[in-house]
Amino acid sequence: MTPPQRNPEDRPVAALLAPDILDLLDESPESVSVETEEMHPADLADVAELLPSERLVPFLKALPKERAADVLEYLDDEVRAAVLEELTVPEAAALVTEMTPDDRADILEGLDEEHAEEILEEIPPEARRETEQLLRYDPDSAGGLMTTEFVSVPADVTVDDALLRVRALARTGRREAMYAVYATDTEGRLVGVLSLRELLAAPPGTKVGDVAWSEVLAVQPTADREEVARLTANYDLVAVPVVSESGHVMGVVTVDDVIDAIQEEQTEDVQKLGGMEALEEPYMNAGFFEMIRKRAGWLMLLLLGEMFTATAMGYFEDEIARAVFLTAFIPLIISSGGNSGSQATSLIIRAMALGEITLRDWWRVARRELGSGLVLGLMLGLIGVARVLVWHFAFGNYGERYLLVALTIGVALIGVVTFGTIVGSMLPFVLRRLGLDPASASAPLVATLVDVTGLVIYFTLALAILL
Amino acid sequence: MTPPQRNPEDRPVAALLAPDILDLLDESPESVSVETEEMHPADLADVAELLPSERLVPFLKALPKERAADVLEYLDDEVRAAVLEELTVPEAAALVTEMTPDDRADILEGLDEEHAEEILEEIPPEARRETEQLLRYDPDSAGGLMTTEFVSVPADVTVDDALLRVRALARTGRREAMYAVYATDTEGRLVGVLSLRELLAAPPGTKVGDVAWSEVLAVQPTADREEVARLTANYDLVAVPVVSESGHVMGVVTVDDVIDAIQEEQTEDVQKLGGMEALEEPYMNAGFFEMIRKRAGWLMLLLLGEMFTATAMGYFEDEIARAVFLTAFIPLIISSGGNSGSQATSLIIRAMALGEITLRDWWRVARRELGSGLVLGLMLGLIGVARVLVWHFAFGNYGERYLLVALTIGVALIGVVTFGTIVGSMLPFVLRRLGLDPASASAPLVATLVDVTGLVIYFTLALAILL
Repeated sequence: MTPPQRNPEDRPVAALLAPDILDLLDESPESVSVETEEMHPADLADVAELLPSERLVPFLKALPKERAADVLEYLDDEVRAAVLEELTVPEAAALVTEMTPDDRADILEGLDEEHAEEILEEIPPEARRETEQLLRYDPDSAGGLMTTEFVSVPADVTVDDALLRVRALARTGRREAMYAVYATDTEGRLVGVLSLRELLAAPPGTKVGDVAWSEVLAVQPTADREEVARLTANYDLVAVPVVSESGHVMGVVTVDDVIDAIQEEQTEDVQKLGGMEALEEPYMNAGFFEMIRKRAGWLMLLLLGEMFTATAMGYFEDEIARAVFLTAFIPLIISSGGNSGSQATSLIIRAMALGEITLRDWWRVARRELGSGLVLGLMLGLIGVARVLVWHFAFGNYGERYLLVALTIGVALIGVVTFGTIVGSMLPFVLRRLGLDPASASAPLVATLVDVTGLVIYFTLALAILL
Repeated sequence: MTPPQRNPEDRPVAALLAPDILDLLDESPESVSVETEEMHPADLADVAELLPSERLVPFLKALPKERAADVLEYLDDEVRAAVLEELTVPEAAALVTEMTPDDRADILEGLDEEHAEEILEEIPPEARRETEQLLRYDPDSAGGLMTTEFVSVPADVTVDDALLRVRALARTGRREAMYAVYATDTEGRLVGVLSLRELLAAPPGTKVGDVAWSEVLAVQPTADREEVARLTANYDLVAVPVVSESGHVMGVVTVDDVIDAIQEEQTEDVQKLGGMEALEEPYMNAGFFEMIRKRAGWLMLLLLGEMFTATAMGYFEDEIARAVFLTAFIPLIISSGGNSGSQATSLIIRAMALGEITLRDWWRVARRELGSGLVLGLMLGLIGVARVLVWHFAFGNYGERYLLVALTIGVALIGVVTFGTIVGSMLPFVLRRLGLDPASASAPLVATLVDVTGLVIYFTLALAILL
């Protein structure tokens, strides 16, 4: 079996490999390990997920323990839970012990509490302590993302000594957070950082403290993952140290976990922006009723909100009866308000997520969006006027007051678009001010808020101009 | 001047530092370099942007050339263009020469062509060749993102020799793509990869080819940045080699550029999802009319689309005149269709962006969403029925046919929500099939598509049940 090139063009290779692996498991399980040794664990995990479920555990057992632990890390949460359930507790503990502390904590977090507790009790005391410490942090905080394995040396050792320590640590087979060496003072507090390349470049004999950067970008363990992501992106970091209040390094968040966090945050934001609660799993893995639950809540709330439109229209029933043609423009007018609000809200939410805009900027944004709303409203208003005039001259729809009808539609569009733009741009500020997630200012929510007001604007204008 | 801790809590430090820098520039420009030497170039760039524009160039000139080049990299595009405009061509060329090839290419790409050409002619021939080569690639492709500085060694050298080369290269002060060493065969083709930590851990005397991973995850220079991002995220990489068709390494895309690409892609997706064209700059930096242009196009198009609702309602004018109360439910019904469509569309777009769903999955998604739409529609339909019944018994609104009214509203909601869900989930597939960006399936576009059909469903039902 020649392992294929791991190239995105010719994926999914997993589907091609799974039958070979099955044959190998039947015929000579002892050769599985050698045949797959050059494969990336992410690909092995893809293969594993395609195997019949009863063959998954034998497959993992055919791999060396470190490799099996690597594959376990890349498995889907549910598949992984099933595997750990099937193994005996000591077997599960042995696998989990091979993992980096942060992945170990993540995986235990995904199990039910009792099972996680059983496994924890079987892993060696030091690893258990580390893991228990990590489990105390919110998984979405720096403490929850960090690994506790990193390289730190006293600032007064030479770079040669530091390099020896790094090499010794590298040989232990531990694998994370080796992008930089952290220098500490005699109290063990973080005083400097040196990238691995800077360590390799440093003249032999110099002290680490003399060549390290004394200003270290660091976060506290309670920092939100969004903050870690912002720091990583703005400063082009590959690892962010997590430092206690007393200045001791507790761990390091590595860039691969930051990328995962960025992707997850973004998925949540897009789903919220679409007007639902964020799913906790990929779309295809989420259970049907779980997904309904995440969607139904907002849909029902929005429907209740929209009921005010029916109430509002009740007030104008007499006017509507006197000029039924007015109703034909209702969808057009209220949707324009919703659309302009949706644009404004997505602009502001994204700028907030990137840290380009903070609460303090609300007034600058409001002025800018008032201008945008008026200009956009004017453009749409002109199109609305043109529509009425064209239809009037083509089909004679609007009688002799056609100019007043055109004026009503035009002015209503200006008003509704301006109002929609303001509501859409300010709602994320209001939510953030209230301590809520600004991304909850979804396009549907903005549209619903704007619809009632849009109708009132429209019919009030119609009343004043036409009736 | 004590440089402050670079900690996200106490930013913006730049505002505090800018006056100090100005004083220093007046009093002893020669000390600017020493006083700022521990600062991260991203922070120095923040400071630089706060200086009066005529002081920016003197500030950069007070820094060592490599530092000034670093700061230049982090400046906003417009500020940077202004600085390079103000410098003489040889000065600009000298600064640009200090940069990594990929940043150099990015910066020249941001200038007008003539100016970039002048600067290019002044930089040393080798750097110029590298840069010209990079400029040939689409900036959003792997070739456009890669740097051409990386470490490669023949597979038959020992790890000790390889380490010596790495250290020698590290000492030259070049700074990118030193996460891994690429092993090549006698023809110079990529045959293996070894991370820096694996190199450090390898037993002395072994050949690089014997310890390197023979399966290398790589992309072609024309690969889209989304593909590079997906590879980086899925396999936890910090650098992706870019390989020509003949198998030679042309460059390396580093994780910092991947993160920038991910953020930019996400910003584009959110803005498109909000129903506008993506901005090319941060919200606060985008010009007012530029922003209007990006928003007005879609708003006008959507308005034109919504005009079909007016046409559709024209057909039902007689029915409406006979039962004006029907119009009160129009906004509620069509917005429910739009909202459920918006949910479906944001779910599918995000799953596509993450590569969880491909074109082939359309049928699975369609079935799943048909089920979701029916269940969600039923829930909303029941609320709609309840609304009619409650209002009827409370205010006697709907006469003796109130049960038929309730039925009309309930069934219309089921139909509209199901239809909205299907349209919202399938539109991204249709767009991708047509070679367009699925993210253009914005919430407003889905709502507009659903509105016309929603009205037709509603009035057709009303006609059948009520009139």
